[in-house]
Amino acid sequence: MALISPSRRLRRTPFSDGVEAAGVKAYTVYNRMLLPTVFDSVEADYRHLKQHVQVWDVACERQVELRGPDAGRLMQMLTPRDLRGMTAGQCFYVPIVDETGGMLNDPVAVKLSDDRWWISIADSDLLLWVKGIANGWRLDVLVDEPDVSPLAIQGPRADDLMARVFGEDVRKIRFFRFGIFQFEGRDMVIARSGYSKQGGYEIYLEGGDLGMPLWNRLFEAGEDLQVRAGCPNLIERIEGGLLSYGNDMTDDNTPHECGLGKFCNTHTAIGCIGRDALLRVAKEGPVQQIRPIAIDGDAVPGCDRPWPVFANGKRAGQVTSAAWSPDFETNVSIGMIRMTHWDAGTKLEVETPDGMRTATVRDTFWI
Amino acid sequence: MALISPSRRLRRTPFSDGVEAAGVKAYTVYNRMLLPTVFDSVEADYRHLKQHVQVWDVACERQVELRGPDAGRLMQMLTPRDLRGMTAGQCFYVPIVDETGGMLNDPVAVKLSDDRWWISIADSDLLLWVKGIANGWRLDVLVDEPDVSPLAIQGPRADDLMARVFGEDVRKIRFFRFGIFQFEGRDMVIARSGYSKQGGYEIYLEGGDLGMPLWNRLFEAGEDLQVRAGCPNLIERIEGGLLSYGNDMTDDNTPHECGLGKFCNTHTAIGCIGRDALLRVAKEGPVQQIRPIAIDGDAVPGCDRPWPVFANGKRAGQVTSAAWSPDFETNVSIGMIRMTHWDAGTKLEVETPDGMRTATVRDTFWI
Repeated sequence: MALISPSRRLRRTPFSDGVEAAGVKAYTVYNRMLLPTVFDSVEADYRHLKQHVQVWDVACERQVELRGPDAGRLMQMLTPRDLRGMTAGQCFYVPIVDETGGMLNDPVAVKLSDDRWWISIADSDLLLWVKGIANGWRLDVLVDEPDVSPLAIQGPRADDLMARVFGEDVRKIRFFRFGIFQFEGRDMVIARSGYSKQGGYEIYLEGGDLGMPLWNRLFEAGEDLQVRAGCPNLIERIEGGLLSYGNDMTDDNTPHECGLGKFCNTHTAIGCIGRDALLRVAKEGPVQQIRPIAIDGDAVPGCDRPWPVFANGKRAGQVTSAAWSPDFETNVSIGMIRMTHWDAGTKLEVETPDGMRTATVRDTFWI
Repeated sequence: MALISPSRRLRRTPFSDGVEAAGVKAYTVYNRMLLPTVFDSVEADYRHLKQHVQVWDVACERQVELRGPDAGRLMQMLTPRDLRGMTAGQCFYVPIVDETGGMLNDPVAVKLSDDRWWISIADSDLLLWVKGIANGWRLDVLVDEPDVSPLAIQGPRADDLMARVFGEDVRKIRFFRFGIFQFEGRDMVIARSGYSKQGGYEIYLEGGDLGMPLWNRLFEAGEDLQVRAGCPNLIERIEGGLLSYGNDMTDDNTPHECGLGKFCNTHTAIGCIGRDALLRVAKEGPVQQIRPIAIDGDAVPGCDRPWPVFANGKRAGQVTSAAWSPDFETNVSIGMIRMTHWDAGTKLEVETPDGMRTATVRDTFWI
């Protein structure tokens, strides 16, 4: 692996000093910001995540803030998910699509109030799309990137750690809901959410100055819980079927291809820019779709480009994320597979850099 | 320095195999694509660039293509530079601004014909802004990212190398003009441009399949010219005053702050979205501006965050790019300095990670 060259353009976060002190070994770049990928090793990080509790610098989940009388209207223009039933205090996973129904991002929308929303984004400059739409449609709304940096607390002991720092009430937050809690006298949005299947929270830190005080407080409070610095874990997220925008899907894909049809209410999401384009695909279904695929053999190398997938010598799709799973003793992977070959149990061949491997389509992800 | 974790999301380019074979040591990520930063060492790469010729994988300069009857109108909406005099075959450096006059990108616009343009972008997803504007204003134009990957040939021997591959006529291309040349029977746009002050070309490769054949042909043809794989060089680009979007400027800055006022025709660029916001700053001038700053002492460490600049203990601005220049035997740097302290010769203090350094504002960049 090559080194990463530091520059201001690859933005540091309010937690970077803590991440470095914890011995980060590798990064990726996400929304032009540093996102740690390895502390001990991907496998050791994975073991720890499933047993204890970790603190993740996910400040790279930048926020797009919508504020003003047209905020709700604009939010609905962005997504085919019907937002009419959403109340303040809720978080919704929302596919964002362009006028062709192509995915531009798959963020979490946080409804702070009727006229104030945050969109907690995956890896694309969604701010520019939202600003362009707001400008072109002359909406009465302010759109910008506020000084908000999420910190995730993930793992089976997340509740215990959070209760020590924010009080017992934090345990009562329901899944994909948020509450307002105090830290150093300042309000913080805390949601039960996060990019793992181990449970936990995301703290939306407003104001970078409190980054290291918050980081340090969590580590002091969690010493006997074996709290550690962590990060989204490649193995665990594939096992859990957590998609990664830019890896498993791009703007070439519709939400339905990504298995996100259940978040699309194409009949009722009036105003959604991509609605017309999605009506037909919603009715007839996509011709390719995301599938969990078990790849046989030893640990596969890192998947840094789409791996072609074949069936009887004919192209059947591609794999875009893959890793060896110690717990399931197979290579877990995520692929986009054509409908002719997407049924569970279908035997495939995956062209990895190490050569062709046999593989099988699964019914469900691993956890 | 930490490692960079490979993934599909950090896109490879049609030239990546060549870059790896040439022994790339470090990368940055630019437009969600790998951009090499070091081959031998930053200083050895710099020496070679100034004496010989290098081939740079700058596929990360992604293109935004505008096609259709409203392409010209849309292009003018994006920039305060008056494009009326621009003819097909020309390249224009164009600040792109939002409705507040904030810089969204500083690309090169390539006019292929009246109804077809490429925007060769710096590091932001400008595609999303342009698509949003086109949608909201209901323009009759197609906007997408074509399969075009620029390859730069830079250095004093660039003309000789290019003439061997594309014929003598390539020497006649004037600065910031382009011509159409053949390679393997396919048309290629070749412009006299590039992100160095050593002279050279950018080949806009259409179709990734010809990436390695083109790369290999250039290396075969240039063996006795000591051709080498290279990349934009930190030292050389600071010496030459080549700004880097995301490093030296962000969407907080106006073009005038970036010293790009000469590319803003706010009176005549009718239709530019940020025109109203820029009229006043164009008249009165900015209160801070980009300046070349010589920083005293030994080689400074890498500048991975803004370094505060002071004058008599009062904040006067910040430095955002810095490197030791072997040729000028000083630390060359780029800063954004308040008007009270931006005159050439002004003495400043720069707070580097190694401690406070004395520094001086210069009249001009080094080359």
